[in-house]
Amino acid sequence: MADTAQANIGVIGMAVMGSNLARNLASREGNTVAIYNRSPEKTRAVVEEFPDAGFIASESIEDFVASLSTPRTAIIMVKAGKGTDAVIDQLVEHFEPGDIIVDGGNALFTDTIRREKAVRETGINFVGAGISGGEEGALRGPSIMPGGSAEAWETLGPILKSIAAVAEGEPCVTHVGTDGAGHFVKMVHNGIEYADMQLIAEAYDLIRRGTGKTPAEIADIFAEWNTGELESYLIEITAEVLRQVDAETGKPLIDVILDQAGAKGTGAWTVQTALDLGIPVSGIAEAVFARSLSSKPAQRDAASDLPGPSASWEVKDVDAFIEDVRQALYASKIIAYSQGFDEIVAGAEQYGWDIKKGDIAKIWRGGCIIRARFLNRITEAYEENPDLVALVTAPFFTTIVSDAQDSWRRIVAGAAQSGIPAPAFSSSLSYYDGLRADRLPAALVQGQRDFFGAHTYKRVDKDGTFHTLWSGDRSEVSAEDTH
Amino acid sequence: MADTAQANIGVIGMAVMGSNLARNLASREGNTVAIYNRSPEKTRAVVEEFPDAGFIASESIEDFVASLSTPRTAIIMVKAGKGTDAVIDQLVEHFEPGDIIVDGGNALFTDTIRREKAVRETGINFVGAGISGGEEGALRGPSIMPGGSAEAWETLGPILKSIAAVAEGEPCVTHVGTDGAGHFVKMVHNGIEYADMQLIAEAYDLIRRGTGKTPAEIADIFAEWNTGELESYLIEITAEVLRQVDAETGKPLIDVILDQAGAKGTGAWTVQTALDLGIPVSGIAEAVFARSLSSKPAQRDAASDLPGPSASWEVKDVDAFIEDVRQALYASKIIAYSQGFDEIVAGAEQYGWDIKKGDIAKIWRGGCIIRARFLNRITEAYEENPDLVALVTAPFFTTIVSDAQDSWRRIVAGAAQSGIPAPAFSSSLSYYDGLRADRLPAALVQGQRDFFGAHTYKRVDKDGTFHTLWSGDRSEVSAEDTH
Repeated sequence: MADTAQANIGVIGMAVMGSNLARNLASREGNTVAIYNRSPEKTRAVVEEFPDAGFIASESIEDFVASLSTPRTAIIMVKAGKGTDAVIDQLVEHFEPGDIIVDGGNALFTDTIRREKAVRETGINFVGAGISGGEEGALRGPSIMPGGSAEAWETLGPILKSIAAVAEGEPCVTHVGTDGAGHFVKMVHNGIEYADMQLIAEAYDLIRRGTGKTPAEIADIFAEWNTGELESYLIEITAEVLRQVDAETGKPLIDVILDQAGAKGTGAWTVQTALDLGIPVSGIAEAVFARSLSSKPAQRDAASDLPGPSASWEVKDVDAFIEDVRQALYASKIIAYSQGFDEIVAGAEQYGWDIKKGDIAKIWRGGCIIRARFLNRITEAYEENPDLVALVTAPFFTTIVSDAQDSWRRIVAGAAQSGIPAPAFSSSLSYYDGLRADRLPAALVQGQRDFFGAHTYKRVDKDGTFHTLWSGDRSEVSAEDTH
Repeated sequence: MADTAQANIGVIGMAVMGSNLARNLASREGNTVAIYNRSPEKTRAVVEEFPDAGFIASESIEDFVASLSTPRTAIIMVKAGKGTDAVIDQLVEHFEPGDIIVDGGNALFTDTIRREKAVRETGINFVGAGISGGEEGALRGPSIMPGGSAEAWETLGPILKSIAAVAEGEPCVTHVGTDGAGHFVKMVHNGIEYADMQLIAEAYDLIRRGTGKTPAEIADIFAEWNTGELESYLIEITAEVLRQVDAETGKPLIDVILDQAGAKGTGAWTVQTALDLGIPVSGIAEAVFARSLSSKPAQRDAASDLPGPSASWEVKDVDAFIEDVRQALYASKIIAYSQGFDEIVAGAEQYGWDIKKGDIAKIWRGGCIIRARFLNRITEAYEENPDLVALVTAPFFTTIVSDAQDSWRRIVAGAAQSGIPAPAFSSSLSYYDGLRADRLPAALVQGQRDFFGAHTYKRVDKDGTFHTLWSGDRSEVSAEDTH
């Protein structure tokens, strides 16, 4: 058996993400890649299709394990869920202490925490690694967010660096933190992606409804934006999608696509986790809700007769209007990232992860869906002040929002007046105004809570917790006296 | 032992909710109430304080069980969590098939589903009952939302009807559905309560900032509103809270209360569950987020210098402005209820509950925190059309929103322009405009998803699922061909 132990890395699961990642690995100097799939036909097909990859293919898990040199390192690329647990169990049975199991699927981070704990007890390393970039990214260079132990990172780091995307000379991978940290950060990445896409969609809708421009004309606007501070993969492909013409009808493809957006759950996870952590991620939530609203044809049909405003938007200066939309998009996007990083900070605190925020922004610069020029600014902001309490309060971002806010307010106000739904633009602005408010009406909410539920309140002028005897003589008592 | 079995109902847990509920039960004709608490001192204190209640007090669970006539019926009123499971285990040990265990705490409905299933296997009935109204409600008449079996309801129904609040001659209790249905509906009730409170808080803030009126003057406005279509408990107590003067400083109490609102989790649960069910509950989410934003002093402090708009709101006609705010509040409130009922419909479908939506609105008319005149209109809407796909599309509500929308739009636009955070007003309006939109930019989101992840799309003009070969010749293929 020892003779066959020549692969430094193995991949389990030969669906397109797995086979692309295996091909990516095989294409890099120094890697010999073992592959395995539950049904051997798939493995054979991959070997046949890519004879130059030099794959060491196994048709049993025993052979697969035997083909790996120590410390054995295997990346699981199967659909997240029970299948992942089954593969982990198989590997644990055959691996030895010091070996490394990597889950490269989209696992929920709490599952990763659970799995890491269980596997660690055997002395084997378990690494939950978020991999972003889709099928193309897996093949040509994804952004990789591995968690797990420092020991595992020592072996795994160089391998992952060899296949990751490269941005400004740096590989888009870093050791995010222990156990579930990698999958947590990948989850938030996806949540931000939801917000980013919704904001772009609102910008497109506003321009189209506000100016009557064609999708092709709006494609030009996005292409133009992509040469400036908004430069990003999502802006780039928006131009491509808007420019596309449907061959069958000759219409813009965007008008042929049914306006119901699907979702695979990571956006919802991001919001659900944020709610557990007490972090307001309103931009991401509105993006998730916008997709679910779109996918309710019966409700939308019944609601299509609901009255709209009497007047539509009379855009007088088209160029100024488009610039307003661009500014609103940029400011809202900063809020979405600020909220996303708040969630990362809160998660790190809750789960004891030492996450370098600046490094996260760095590894998102290449390979992943939200790659964007302005991520460098986020890195710089956290380098300048690692304890930044909110991204939007970093001088660079404050300046942008300050410059953008008149535009932003005009767009949100105009959308409300003219009946164009802009939930992510609006909620981002509300959040911004809430964050900077000297005084919030939360005091009234707390007063109501004290009235009906004796939930008590704190005072602005002294320490302690208080309760007003609302059903009594309405005097105030120290809360220690009330229960 | 048989001689002592004279109580037709028992209550376990003598904290204030439990003892108040026991006193309520004891005050109604025909009830004899057994009580028990883990630490007997509390039981003794309750007996001593309320000698006329005729409580049959036990200091052991065995005596408590023996004091109940069959079918034994016991309501657990302990803090939701592991304590609930411990008490259930004790009761299951001593109860017999046909007996009834009621959990009257704020359990998460999935826990109730799990518990009901486990208890049912012993032949004992388990009822998760949401109880709303706080301490006062428990004593004088709450709104009660019991789940569980029809068999249990036969015994329990008359008892619960005897203690529930009464609205327009009807007791505020109904058999909601099997297993977790009651706690599910109670959860959504609380979520709507969050939205309702946030909307009121925004209305107050807008009037204060927009007109400079004093809290006492605004209290008069809310008192006036409470005589009209907004009549509700929360509007009523808002007037009370705003009118309250702090004895120590002579200032309005609202200005002395620290503006950080707490939360106990049911609002977050409502949103998390809605995300699982794919239901957009943006009003509730923004309310939960507004509370968590308020409770981040370090961030708010750092953000307090963030720039606001150059101009503040110049309200010219104060009365018209206040009426605009009222209309915006009413319309937004309808959206919050519409979203909440969507969640109930989706939950009922997901978990197989036969929930009568009109009856839910009915039992919320009294006893609970969101009791309000307009709940009758919801009942009527569902009586007229039990399959109503969205509350806001019922003619009565459509008319209100139609009449309100100019005001609503002015308020949301004005808030955005003048830097006053109104996240719940804004998101409700965005939702409304999204719901009634002929075409949503979700088509662009779906196009982007197809571009970067081959997630496919549907077409407006024919059946099937399609994918554009974005990295290839950009022709369109049927999705069956792509994977």
